[in-house]
Amino acid sequence: MASVLARYRWRLVERTEHHLGYPYNLDFEYGALAQLQHFSINNIGDPFIESNYGVHSRQFEVGVLDWFARLWELEKNEYWGYITNCGTEGNLHGILVGREVFPDGILYASKDSHYSAFKAARMYRMESIKVKTLVSGEMDCSDFEQKLLQNKDKPAIVNVNIGTTVKGAVDDLDLVIKILEESGFKNRFYIHCDGALFGLMLPFVKRAPKVTFKKPIGSVSVSGHKFVGCPMPCGVQITRREHIGAFSRDVEYLASRDATIMGSRNGHAPLFLWCTLNKKGYKGFQKEVQRCLQNAHYLRNRLREVGVGAMLNELSSTVVFERPRDEEFVRKWQLACQGNIAHVVVMPSVTIEKLDSFLHELVQTRSNWLQGGRNPAPCIAEEIGGENCACALHKK
Amino acid sequence: MASVLARYRWRLVERTEHHLGYPYNLDFEYGALAQLQHFSINNIGDPFIESNYGVHSRQFEVGVLDWFARLWELEKNEYWGYITNCGTEGNLHGILVGREVFPDGILYASKDSHYSAFKAARMYRMESIKVKTLVSGEMDCSDFEQKLLQNKDKPAIVNVNIGTTVKGAVDDLDLVIKILEESGFKNRFYIHCDGALFGLMLPFVKRAPKVTFKKPIGSVSVSGHKFVGCPMPCGVQITRREHIGAFSRDVEYLASRDATIMGSRNGHAPLFLWCTLNKKGYKGFQKEVQRCLQNAHYLRNRLREVGVGAMLNELSSTVVFERPRDEEFVRKWQLACQGNIAHVVVMPSVTIEKLDSFLHELVQTRSNWLQGGRNPAPCIAEEIGGENCACALHKK
Repeated sequence: MASVLARYRWRLVERTEHHLGYPYNLDFEYGALAQLQHFSINNIGDPFIESNYGVHSRQFEVGVLDWFARLWELEKNEYWGYITNCGTEGNLHGILVGREVFPDGILYASKDSHYSAFKAARMYRMESIKVKTLVSGEMDCSDFEQKLLQNKDKPAIVNVNIGTTVKGAVDDLDLVIKILEESGFKNRFYIHCDGALFGLMLPFVKRAPKVTFKKPIGSVSVSGHKFVGCPMPCGVQITRREHIGAFSRDVEYLASRDATIMGSRNGHAPLFLWCTLNKKGYKGFQKEVQRCLQNAHYLRNRLREVGVGAMLNELSSTVVFERPRDEEFVRKWQLACQGNIAHVVVMPSVTIEKLDSFLHELVQTRSNWLQGGRNPAPCIAEEIGGENCACALHKK
Repeated sequence: MASVLARYRWRLVERTEHHLGYPYNLDFEYGALAQLQHFSINNIGDPFIESNYGVHSRQFEVGVLDWFARLWELEKNEYWGYITNCGTEGNLHGILVGREVFPDGILYASKDSHYSAFKAARMYRMESIKVKTLVSGEMDCSDFEQKLLQNKDKPAIVNVNIGTTVKGAVDDLDLVIKILEESGFKNRFYIHCDGALFGLMLPFVKRAPKVTFKKPIGSVSVSGHKFVGCPMPCGVQITRREHIGAFSRDVEYLASRDATIMGSRNGHAPLFLWCTLNKKGYKGFQKEVQRCLQNAHYLRNRLREVGVGAMLNELSSTVVFERPRDEEFVRKWQLACQGNIAHVVVMPSVTIEKLDSFLHELVQTRSNWLQGGRNPAPCIAEEIGGENCACALHKK
C-alpha cells in the first residue's frame, strides 16, 4: 500500500505541476490543519443551529459565511448560507430557493452557463429557457428581453454568470435587472448569481460592476477550491434569510434544521477556507487577483505575438485561444477545450515561468501540426471575434 | 491562529471521546494519506471517463466501486456508480434515477425513512406516499400493499430502508418485492435501497436477508463515514448501468460525462475508503460487525437490568431507549433523540468501557430526575413495544 501511495503521490506532483486548464488554485498550504484529519468533522444540518453531534466546525463555518456576507453586503441578521460541496451545489441550492419563492417561475440562463443550471431545471421539473450569448460569452440581453416578453405570465428565475465557465465572461447584472423591471417583472423575479470563480475575484477588480445584495438579487454562490484553493471541492452559498423559512424543515433527530441540499456536510472545508481568509485577508486576495489579471494579459499578448488567435475578456483571467490539435499536449497541460477553442485559467498557482514553459512547448508543437507554416492557422473568429483571430483572413 | 486551532483540537478530542448517538465510526487512522492533503484532488465528472483535469483519484474510486459492486453482486460491466458526498446524495441520486426510469412514478417510503427521501420527492416534484411502520420501525407491508392498490395506474418507486435512522430497522426487501409483483407492478417498479449504515453491516451478519442486485432492485447507497469511518462525510452509490444512459449528459468542457448529482467531487474520499478496504478487508469488517452487535446486546441488556426500557432490533446495533430528561447529559453524550426515545448506535469506536462509563452516569443522573424512584419510569411502549418497556404497567 505504501508503494502504491508513493507512486500516486509522484503522479500528483507531476499533474499539479502541469495544470493550466481548470480554474483551481493548486497553491495552498494547510499544514496547520493536518492535526485535524484524525477527526470525523460533520456540520450536519443547519450552520446556525447546533445539532447534537458535537464533532463539528460550525463556529468556523459561520465565521467564513459572515466574511462573505460582508463582502456581498448583506447584514448578519438578514443572510443565511452554508458551505457547500462544490459550485454545482451552490447553483442547485440557489435555483431551488428561486423555485420555492416562485413555484411557477421559468429559469432563464445563457447557453454559456455552467451545465449545472440546466441540470437543476431538469431535476426540479422547471421550465427553462436558454438565452443566446455574445461572442464574449456574455448573456445577449436583447435576446433575454425578447424571451421575457414572450413569457410575461410567469415569474422569472435568472441565472446570472459572474464569469462563465469557458470564456470567463461576466453577465451584465445591472442590465439584467433593468430589463426585468422594465418588462413588467418587478417583484416577480429571482436572480441567482453563479460566481463560481469570479464571485471572489470581481470584488477586488477596479472598475468592475458590483455583485451586492443592495441590488435585488436572491443568492450568490462561489467555489472554495477555485480562487481560494482547497484539497477538495467546496463552496459558499449566501442567500436572503427571508427566503429560507418556507424552504427548511426541522429535523428532530438532528436537533437541527434541514435547509441545505446535502445532509451530512464536510466540516473540514470551512476550516480550510477560514485558514486562508485569515492568512491572506482582503489585501492578500486583492494582490493575488491583480497578479492573475496581469499574468493573463501577459499570456494573451504572448499568444498573439506568436501568431495564435486569443481572447481575454475584461475583468477576467481566462485566456481563450485556438485549440491545440495535439491531444497529448492538451492532456499534458490539462487544457479545457470546447469546439475549436481551449482555455487557460490564470490562477495564483500559474506563474510567468509556467506560462513561458507552456508557450515554448506550444510554439514547437504547433509548428508541427501546421507543418512549419505550410498549413494555415485556423479561423476561430466565430468563437472569439474577428479582432482576436489570427487566421490569414483576420490577422492585421 | 495556532492557539485557536489548538483549543479547537482539544474540544474535538473531548467531543469524540463522548460520542454515542450518531452512526459514525470515529476510530480511524489515515496517517499514510496525510502527504496527499497538499493536492487539490477532484474527480470531476464520471468516475469511468477520465476528464482533462489530471489531479484526480479515479483509479482508487473505481477500485472502491468494484468492491461494492461485488459485495452487492452486480457484474463489473453491468454496474455504474460513484463516490458521493454523503448518504443524502445517494438517496437523491437513487430516487432521481428511479424518476427518470418512471417519470410518472410515485415514491413510496415509510415514515421512518431518512428525511432525505421526502426531500427528494419535494425537490423533484414527485408524488410521494408515506407508508406506516411497525413498532420496530420496519415498513408496515400491509399498509404498503393497500396504498399500492389504490394507485395501480402509476409505477412505484420504493425507498427500502436497510436500517432506519432512528430504530435501525431493516425493511423486508423480499416481501416488498413480492407485494409489488403480486399487486400488478411487475416491471413497473424501481427500488432504491437506502443502506446508509447497515448496507455495509448486513452482508456480514449471519442469517440476515441479502441485499443483492440478483433481486430486482435499481440502486443501493451506503455512507462511507458511518461504518467505515472517514474524516468527512462520503458515500457509495451503485446502480445498474442500463439506467444511466438516459440520465447522463456529455460535458465537452470536462471531456467527461455528467451523471452525478454534484459536479466537482472530493477525490480524497475514495482514498480514505480504499485504504480502509485494503487494511480491513472482508474479514476485518466481519469481525467489527460481530463486535458491534455483541456490544449492542450488552448495552441493551444492561439498560434493562438497571430498569430502563430499551429495544434492539435483530440485525441492528442501534439501541433505542427511554429519552434522558437531562438535556445537558444528552448533549454530553451526543445522543440522538426523537419524541420520548433516544438511541445509541454501537459503532467500532464504541467500546464496552465507554458504554460502562455512559451507563454509570446514566444511572446516577436518572436517579435525580426520577427523584430516587419517587417518580415512575415513563411508559414508552408505544415507541418500543410493551415487551421492551420498563414502566410500572409493562415491566414483568
